[in-house]
Parts: sequence; C-alpha cells; structure tokens
Amino acid sequence: MKKVAVIMGSDSDLPVVSKAVETLGDLGVPVETHIMSAHRTPDAAARFAENARENGFGAIICAAGMAAHLAGAIAARTTLPVIGIPICGKSFGGLDALLSTVQMPSGIPVATVAVDGAKNAAFLAAEIIAVDDADLAGKLDAIRAAAAEEVMEKDRKIRERGQNA
Amino acid sequence: MKKVAVIMGSDSDLPVVSKAVETLGDLGVPVETHIMSAHRTPDAAARFAENARENGFGAIICAAGMAAHLAGAIAARTTLPVIGIPICGKSFGGLDALLSTVQMPSGIPVATVAVDGAKNAAFLAAEIIAVDDADLAGKLDAIRAAAAEEVMEKDRKIRERGQNA
Amino acid sequence: MKKVAVIMGSDSDLPVVSKAVETLGDLGVPVETHIMSAHRTPDAAARFAENARENGFGAIICAAGMAAHLAGAIAARTTLPVIGIPICGKSFGGLDALLSTVQMPSGIPVATVAVDGAKNAAFLAAEIIAVDDADLAGKLDAIRAAAAEEVMEKDRKIRERGQNA
Amino acid sequence: MKKVAVIMGSDSDLPVVSKAVETLGDLGVPVETHIMSAHRTPDAAARFAENARENGFGAIICAAGMAAHLAGAIAARTTLPVIGIPICGKSFGGLDALLSTVQMPSGIPVATVAVDGAKNAAFLAAEIIAVDDADLAGKLDAIRAAAAEEVMEKDRKIRERGQNA
Amino acid sequence: MKKVAVIMGSDSDLPVVSKAVETLGDLGVPVETHIMSAHRTPDAAARFAENARENGFGAIICAAGMAAHLAGAIAARTTLPVIGIPICGKSFGGLDALLSTVQMPSGIPVATVAVDGAKNAAFLAAEIIAVDDADLAGKLDAIRAAAAEEVMEKDRKIRERGQNA
Amino acid sequence: MKKVAVIMGSDSDLPVVSKAVETLGDLGVPVETHIMSAHRTPDAAARFAENARENGFGAIICAAGMAAHLAGAIAARTTLPVIGIPICGKSFGGLDALLSTVQMPSGIPVATVAVDGAKNAAFLAAEIIAVDDADLAGKLDAIRAAAAEEVMEKDRKIRERGQNA
Amino acid sequence: MKKVAVIMGSDSDLPVVSKAVETLGDLGVPVETHIMSAHRTPDAAARFAENARENGFGAIICAAGMAAHLAGAIAARTTLPVIGIPICGKSFGGLDALLSTVQMPSGIPVATVAVDGAKNAAFLAAEIIAVDDADLAGKLDAIRAAAAEEVMEKDRKIRERGQNA
Amino acid sequence: MKKVAVIMGSDSDLPVVSKAVETLGDLGVPVETHIMSAHRTPDAAARFAENARENGFGAIICAAGMAAHLAGAIAARTTLPVIGIPICGKSFGGLDALLSTVQMPSGIPVATVAVDGAKNAAFLAAEIIAVDDADLAGKLDAIRAAAAEEVMEKDRKIRERGQNA
Repeated sequence: MKKVAVIMGSDSDLPVVSKAVETLGDLGVPVETHIMSAHRTPDAAARFAENARENGFGAIICAAGMAAHLAGAIAARTTLPVIGIPICGKSFGGLDALLSTVQMPSGIPVATVAVDGAKNAAFLAAEIIAVDDADLAGKLDAIRAAAAEEVMEKDRKIRERGQNA
Repeated sequence: MKKVAVIMGSDSDLPVVSKAVETLGDLGVPVETHIMSAHRTPDAAARFAENARENGFGAIICAAGMAAHLAGAIAARTTLPVIGIPICGKSFGGLDALLSTVQMPSGIPVATVAVDGAKNAAFLAAEIIAVDDADLAGKLDAIRAAAAEEVMEKDRKIRERGQNA
Repeated sequence: MKKVAVIMGSDSDLPVVSKAVETLGDLGVPVETHIMSAHRTPDAAARFAENARENGFGAIICAAGMAAHLAGAIAARTTLPVIGIPICGKSFGGLDALLSTVQMPSGIPVATVAVDGAKNAAFLAAEIIAVDDADLAGKLDAIRAAAAEEVMEKDRKIRERGQNA
Repeated sequence: MKKVAVIMGSDSDLPVVSKAVETLGDLGVPVETHIMSAHRTPDAAARFAENARENGFGAIICAAGMAAHLAGAIAARTTLPVIGIPICGKSFGGLDALLSTVQMPSGIPVATVAVDGAKNAAFLAAEIIAVDDADLAGKLDAIRAAAAEEVMEKDRKIRERGQNA
Repeated sequence: MKKVAVIMGSDSDLPVVSKAVETLGDLGVPVETHIMSAHRTPDAAARFAENARENGFGAIICAAGMAAHLAGAIAARTTLPVIGIPICGKSFGGLDALLSTVQMPSGIPVATVAVDGAKNAAFLAAEIIAVDDADLAGKLDAIRAAAAEEVMEKDRKIRERGQNA
Repeated sequence: MKKVAVIMGSDSDLPVVSKAVETLGDLGVPVETHIMSAHRTPDAAARFAENARENGFGAIICAAGMAAHLAGAIAARTTLPVIGIPICGKSFGGLDALLSTVQMPSGIPVATVAVDGAKNAAFLAAEIIAVDDADLAGKLDAIRAAAAEEVMEKDRKIRERGQNA
Repeated sequence: MKKVAVIMGSDSDLPVVSKAVETLGDLGVPVETHIMSAHRTPDAAARFAENARENGFGAIICAAGMAAHLAGAIAARTTLPVIGIPICGKSFGGLDALLSTVQMPSGIPVATVAVDGAKNAAFLAAEIIAVDDADLAGKLDAIRAAAAEEVMEKDRKIRERGQNA
Repeated sequence: MKKVAVIMGSDSDLPVVSKAVETLGDLGVPVETHIMSAHRTPDAAARFAENARENGFGAIICAAGMAAHLAGAIAARTTLPVIGIPICGKSFGGLDALLSTVQMPSGIPVATVAVDGAKNAAFLAAEIIAVDDADLAGKLDAIRAAAAEEVMEKDRKIRERGQNA
C-alpha cells in the first residue's frame, strides 16, 4: 500500500497532529512522521517532496500555523496530493493559517481541511489511497456506518429522556 | 481511467467552474459535469454520491457559494475524495463559502481549494487519479515544468528591461 | 398544539441547546429533542424533515457548529419554518457556523438567531406557534412584561446606589 | 389570511426589498409595505409594532443596513415573529447589518436571513403563515418541486453538452 | 454643571461600566446611572432620552453588547451628544457591538469609543461638558500632564535597568 | 459661537469630508477646514491641536484612512472633543481606519463615527456645541423633525402604491 | 552602493510593483527586477536568495498575492532584510496576502508593508541602505520635507477657500 | 556598532517586548529600552525620533497595541528604519494593532512583524545593522544553521518513534 507522510512545521503542533497519525494507524495505512519547516529547513522539505513519489508515498499531510507555508512549499515540489492542516494560533483563531494554506495560486493545489482538522486530513489521505484500494474503501465505509449508528443510538437515548421535557 | 465529476450548485457558477472542466479535458481525464443543489435537489445529489464509486468515479469536485453545503452533502454520502470550490459571492468575498466548505466536522473531510479555485480543483483531482497512474503523473509534472519555464522566460525579459531602471 | 422539534448535530451541543428545550417546556409548548447529523446521519435527518409537518410539528430548531449544514439540510426537505442556532466553535467564535446557517440560497430560508442563541430560538418557535394561538401569545407578552419589570426594578436600585457616586 | 408587513428603513433599500413584496404577492399572501426608521421615526415604528397583531399581521419583515436596528426595534414591541433582512452596505459587505440584526439579546429574537435575502424573507414569512394554512403550505411545496425540476432540467442539458468535454 | 447619564443595557455590563461612573465622579461631574434596555424597556429608554436635555443632562453614555442598539435608540430621541461603549461579548470580541454602535445612519450620530472603553467614554463626556467649563478643562489637562509624567518616570526607570542589557 | 475644525489627512479625502463642512455651514456653525497629516506634517498638526481651545474651537473633526492616526494624534494634544471619521480605503472597506481610530488607549478618547460618516461627524460636533447653545439645539431638533416628516411622507406614498401589491 | 532586488511572484503584479522600481530609481538606488515564484520556480528563488548578499544586495523586496509565500521563502534562505508587499486579490482585499506575509514564525522575519504598498517598500529598502549612507539619508529627508511642504501648501489653499464656508 | 532602540507604548507590553531586548543582547547589538507613548508623551517620542540618527541608532523597534500609533508616530519623524510590533489585545487578537501599524500611507513606511513578534523584530533590526557588518551577518547565519540543525534532530527523533505508529 502507498504510504502517507505526516509533516508538521514544529514539534509544538504534535498534540494536534498526532490524531492524524493515530487515525491512519487505525486504518492500517503506513505512515511516516516528520518535523520539517518551510522556513527553518527548506532544503530538507524540498528534498523530501521531490522524492516522495518514488519513495512510495501516495499523499502528504502538512500541518503548520501562522503564515503556514509548509503545505504550499511541499506542493511546489511534487504532484502528489498534498493535504494542508491549518493550525490554530494565538491571535486569529487559525484564520492566518487557513488563508495561507488554502489560497494557493493556480497550478499548485493544496487540499485544505478545517483548522486543527488532523483527523479529517487522515481520512482524506485514506480516501485518496482508497481510490484504488477496495479493502481500504471498505474500512472507510464501515467507519462511517459505525459513526452513523453511534449518532442514531444517542438520538434514541435523548428522545427517551426528552419525552418528559 | 477513473472519471472525475464536476458538480455545481447553480448554473450561475458555470463561468468559474468551466475552467475545471477544461483543465481536466486538457489532461485527458474523463469528466462528467452536473448541476445539482444540496438544497433544491438533495435527493439527486444524494443518489449521485452514493453510486459514484461503482459508477467509475475517482474524485468529485463540488462548487457552491454562500452557505456552500454541496461539497459537504456529497461527502456525507461517499468515501471518495470530495473537492470543494468555494464560490465568491457578493457580500463576503467568498468567506462564507470558504468556511461552509472547509470547516467540516470530524469524519467527513472536504478537500478545499481557494475561493473560485476551479483550475486547482481540477489539478487536485488529477493528482488523486495520478497516484496510481504514472502517465497522468508524468503529464502533471510536464505542465509544472512548462509553467516554471514560462516564469523563468518572463524573468529573463523583465531583467533585461529592468536593467535600465 | 403544534410541536417543536429541537435537533442538534452532536451531543456536545447539548449544554447550549438544552436552554431551548427548557424555555419551550416553560411555555408549555410540546418539544421533541433529537440528535441528528447532516453529515453522519443524512438519511435520518431527511426522513425526519420530510415527515415533520404531518407528524404535527410547527417549527424545527436546528443547532450546529463549524460548517453548520444541519438547518439548511432540514430546510431543504420541508416548508415548515426552520430555525438555525449557530454554535460557537473553537476557532472563529461561531462566525463559520453563523455564515453557514444564515447565507442560504434563494428559496430555502433558515431563520437564524444569534451564536449560541438557544433561548431566542425557542422564543422564536413559540412566536411562530402563537401566530394562531392567542393563549401562547398571551404567555409570551406576559414574559416580556415581567422581563421589563425586572429591568426597571434593577434600574431603580442602581439609581439609588448611584446617587452617591 | 394573516397579513405580512414589509418595512424598510430607507427608500434606498427598495430595489432589494421589492423582491420580498413580489414573492409574497405571487404566493397570494396579503402584504403591507412601509418605510419606517428605527432612528428617524421611532414612534411610528413603535406604534406599528404594538398594534400589528390586532391589525391582522402574522409576521413582520424588516430590512435595514449598517447599524441595522429596525428589526430589533420592532421585535422589542411585539411578540409576532419578526424577520430581519440585513442590507449590504458600502463598507463591510453587510457584515455590520448582519451582526446588528442577528446578535439579539435573550428574549427578543429576530429571524435573520442572508444579506440582501429579501426573497427568502418572504418565503420564511409565508412558511410561518402556512403553519396553519394547508393551502399556502401546498403552494410552497409546489414552488419547491418546480425549482427542483428546473435544476434537474439544467442538469440534463449540461450533461449532454458536457459529454463531449 | 450639566449632568452625565451612564446607561447600561444589562446589569451584567456593570463591571465594565462602573469605571465610567468612577472616572466622572473623580472629575466632579455629576452622574446618574441607569439600567435601561433598548429591547426590554424601550419606552423607559425613550422617555429618558426625550427629557434628558430639560432634565439637565449634557451628555449620555450608553453601554451595550451584541446587537448593541441602546446608544442608537437613545440618540434617535435626543440631540444631546450620545456616547456609545461597545461591550465585548463571547463570540466576536465586541465586533458585533462595535459595528452596531458606530455604523449609524446619517442624521443620528453616536460618538463611539473602544470596545469596553468605559474610561474613555467618561473622559469624552467630560471633554464635552468642559467645552464651556474652564475649570473642568483645567482638571482634564492636569490629568493628562500627570499621565505623561507617569510614563516619563517609567521610561527613566526602564532605561536605567535596560542600560545593562 | 465656538468654531469647529475639520481636518483631513489628505486632499483625496475631500469628496467625503466636504459633506461635514456643508452640514456645519447649513447649521450656521463656523468652520475652519484644514489638510494636515499625522505623518507628513506632525508638527503643524500638533501646534494646531495645542492652540485649538484658545483659538476658539469647541470640537475638532479629523478624517483619515488606512492606519488612520490623525484623530488620535490631535486628541493626544488637546482635551477638546475630537471626532474621528474613518475613511473607506481600497482593501478593507475602512476596517483598518475604523480600528485605528476607535481603539484608543485609556485617557485619550476619540469620538468615532461610521466609515465615511462625514455628515454625522458634523451633526455630532454641532450637538457638542449645542450643549450650551439653545438656538443651535433648536435647529438640530428641527432638522430631526423634518427628516422624520420626510420618512413619514415616503411611507404614506409607498403604502398607497403598495396597496395593490 | 548596495543594490535592492524587487521580486514579484507573477507578472500580473507589475502594475503595483513598478512603483517600487520607479521610487528606487528616483532615489538613485540600483535595482534589479525579477519575476520568481515560491511555487512555480522555487529553486530559482532559493538560489537567488542564497547568493543575494555576495551579489551585492542590501535588501530584497518581494510582492505576492493570495497565499503569499514569496517573501517568506526568500527570507528562509538569506539573513538580508526581506520586505514583503501583500498584493490585493479579488476575494479578501489582500487580507490573505497580508497574513501570509506578516505572520512569520520566530527566527525568519519579513518586514511587511501595507497591502499594495509598493512605494513604501521602496522607501523602507532605501532607509535600510541609508543606515550607512549619509547621502541617501539626506535624499530621504529632503523628500519628506518636500512632502510636508506640499501638504502645508494644500492646507493654505483649502483654508482660503474654506474661509467662506 | 549602530544601536537599536526598543520602545514600548506601555509597561504592560514588557512581557512581550523583553524578548526583543534579550535577542538583541544575545546578538551583541547595543540596545536602549524606552517607554514612550504616541498619545501620552507625544513630545518625548517626537524628540527621540528626530535625534535618533545622530544619537547613533540604526533602527527603532516600536511595540504598541489597540490603535497602535507609536511606530507610525516615530516613523513620521525619522528616516531611520522603524519596525512595528503589533501587540495582541483583548478584543481583536491584535488585528486592530496590526492594521494600525502596517497600513501606513505612502512615504512613511513601518516594517511590520507578526502580532507579538518581538523576537522577529529583533532579528529584523539585526539584519538591518548587519547589511554593513559582516560579523553580525555571520552570527545571524550561525543562528539559522543551529535552528535548522535543531529541527532536523527533532525530525530524526520523531521518525524513530513514529516508525512504530
């Protein structure tokens, strides 16, 4: 199976990003975790991106905050799908990271998920791998079905309690 | 080759969305274009999404403005990768559509591109198909190389003119 | 009397939403509480909405956060009045939910109240039921009068204390 | 049938607001149109609101821009459902009017629709009247069905044209 | 000397607003404190405003949050200078109250100060009274001079400590 | 009568600001118009402010765009009431100028009006002068009454026309 | 004299950026103009930045719109002062470019000027060169003095005309 | 070596600003720390700026919050490079200070760094001094290399741990 890379711009992003690593692990998707910075280690990031396809990766998840350039810098050096997680910062609730990640110029897309949306980044990466992997697609469908059942169970419970309101 | 669906919420989005259709056509990726509304034809949209994988689609591009629910409504009914294009509206420069598209809850990702970013939605869809298609990956790399060459040519020209400044 | 449905997208919204249930209970308006998700249980939500009028509902309150599609998804399937409560999230103070709820396309209105405005959603639902129910209208007027009296009492007290400032 | 009032804060809002009047007219809902200002004619607005229920109104639509107080000022004086249309201004794309209309304090709800959403304000008012009027509810359902059919027809056409893309 | 009224929309605003009352008290300006709501006690607010000039007031300070209509509602009923303090709320950092207060339509000005700027509202009211009161103007100038001296003293201290940096 | 100064940061602000000059002229308030820049002619602005009270001014209106410092720079050098008009710029609809004008630190208030609110700046200045000038107060009341009558006349006309809707 | 580089991400930025080139030319500062893209020609940009100091540059001006990474990408590869001009785009008035440029992580500063502030970028670059160049500092002072004189001349003219208002 | 001034508008900014002083100290750049307010001590600030070049300064760092005029007021009185640090306030996450600092009019640039970006302000000042100081440039390059090495070391560690994920 194609691997997914999870790259964060700083180890301070780990509490958010670790959910992406866990989710991919639960799905049985092989993951490689990195700390690389578009600004502090631009060459390491560039080399990683340029070799990612031949190194067996199928998608690259990048998490960064503030003027979040990491996903764009990686996307500039590969035509693999690059997924960006804008990390919520102190001042703008992640709006700076969201706009820095999503507003990419024509030709270099970044697939952006919600602010701090690490879990969805993992699901999106898995969906991309699953385009040609029926087993993984089946796992994703099963997770959806279980999530729906969980909501419906909660609905049953609240309706019973709510009856008396 | 897997097909890509391009769905817009209203035919008024066509001037923006047609660039996605063209770009995919230029790449040789088979496209199916639809007008479906999360609010006006929710059943048609639901049926399309539920059958998209077995109908041979590899990715679904959804374009909508304002309270842009289309991409999320489609994503709720398939585990194929769904790409959202927020359409710029009259009041908020597309911020309403961007937030309505990107801020999806855990479990149902939408791969969001820039406001009116139809071309990048197409490139992202092609990148997803190309994960298991070396030929298409090669085309995408060639387009990147050509775009780089074009910028470098412009740089050469402006430097010559700029010399006299 | 017509019933009011109170639907939340996730049980994490309950602390906010429970004020709507209480307020309706205090007014003697029959309530039915649900947990349904536009994204995780879209079919359950659709079925509920399509049958709401014949099941005796007069208004439907929907509470959701982030890319808050729930009110719009319900409104797409009924011509009963649908009231949306945007839930305050972590990143944007509820702006994402507000815009996702209020900026509905032509033909499918959602009556939007303030971020986390559960109490007003309940009052609005009651006002709608009260259009043809003079008793309920009388109760609403009495609550207003009591609230006014409470403010005037506070004004009298602060003026007395303030005299010395 | 209960009447609907359509009040605008200034005659400069008429081009937007007239769509509400037309839509209600098309639905056969009796309308009364007013120009009243929360700031320039506060007494006239107050008297209108206080007498609206006994004068046969079932809902009041208020349109105003900038620091849009009209809907709130009307809602402060009646327990009829009040619908607010935030009008798009020059500086903030209607964000000022949206926040001034929707962020009402507890006890005095305003049912807010999209910026410049006059048509949806009319549909919402009609939905409120239709809670106890099966004929009007039938008309609203028919309009929805026609709108759905129109979208599906457009979808058929674009798919045929798109086939060749 | 003309009096200044300090009106808040809710007693929950008192912790912020009390600084205005204190500041005016320190300046020897007579103050009258009120709790009045544009929405809950609109008549009381209207009567107060209409009689304020003949009751000896020279300026009216109004503090309110969210869809902050209080200052505008008072300003609609008097040609005395009305000063608005937007109160910081939970969702938008006071942006809703700021825009609801400052974006008044032509003809009905509200002199708006910073979010939670109760102290400056008091100074502004005092400046207005001081236009025709040389003693009060002198007090205001003295406070400014003292504040400047305090900053200069802090500058001297930090420079000494900073010398070693 | 006390004079009012109208200062703009740049002559490009004149089309907006001239409405303030006209309005004051119509009210019979003596005006002195200036172009002074907090950044280009800081000394001229400082001298003007420091001498404004003894030169017979009762209020100073300052209009500036972008990082609008003019009103604050003037307010720093006088305890006369200073009124700020944020001028709408190209990028942020005047939000930059609004926040730069209204968010003043404690001790130095600026009475801020709406973006491009030149007319209201003039009315506010006149209201300040009118605190001790019953004639001017009378004129302001008369203008309000005329504006109300104009709105009521428009209401009568639209109701007649609207009758047929 | 040290040279200044002016780099734009796309030739569509030229109408804005040319003012920076002109201003530096007028000041006699040697300029080199480039078109280089952080995303389309990342290697060319990286090589330029790495060699800029030894190639005789004293400052680098970078102009880019949307997810404006150019200034940050250049700053990541040199310790020369890098000046960022956020270019105004279609959707967010340049807020996306501003936040992408200014919100840089610790260690890699970008000296950001106003949206479309090409002229100020040039003045800032000249100020940097002038730190060790008394002649250039003198020119900058002279331009300031001339600008001040121009404003004062306009002030004299408007006061004369305004006298009659 | 040229000195760098670090000026804050209020001693409450010290916890943020002290990082700038420390960073410059670590780099061996002579620093002078001040508390000066554009509004409370405008004359002291003006005198400092006017004499800064002849007093041996090469750059001036200014930190202020809310309607942050300090950097602009200093920049108005010197052609030395002025660096602005917008300080995060209570209401707008520093957006008010950012716009008040960065949106300067043509002719008077302020080199703006991130909200609370004191460390980067210091690095930028050092970069400016280092344009003509090869030793300081060498120190800055060494710090960059060390930061890169630190990130790469963290990357090695997380990859090892991540292997098992």
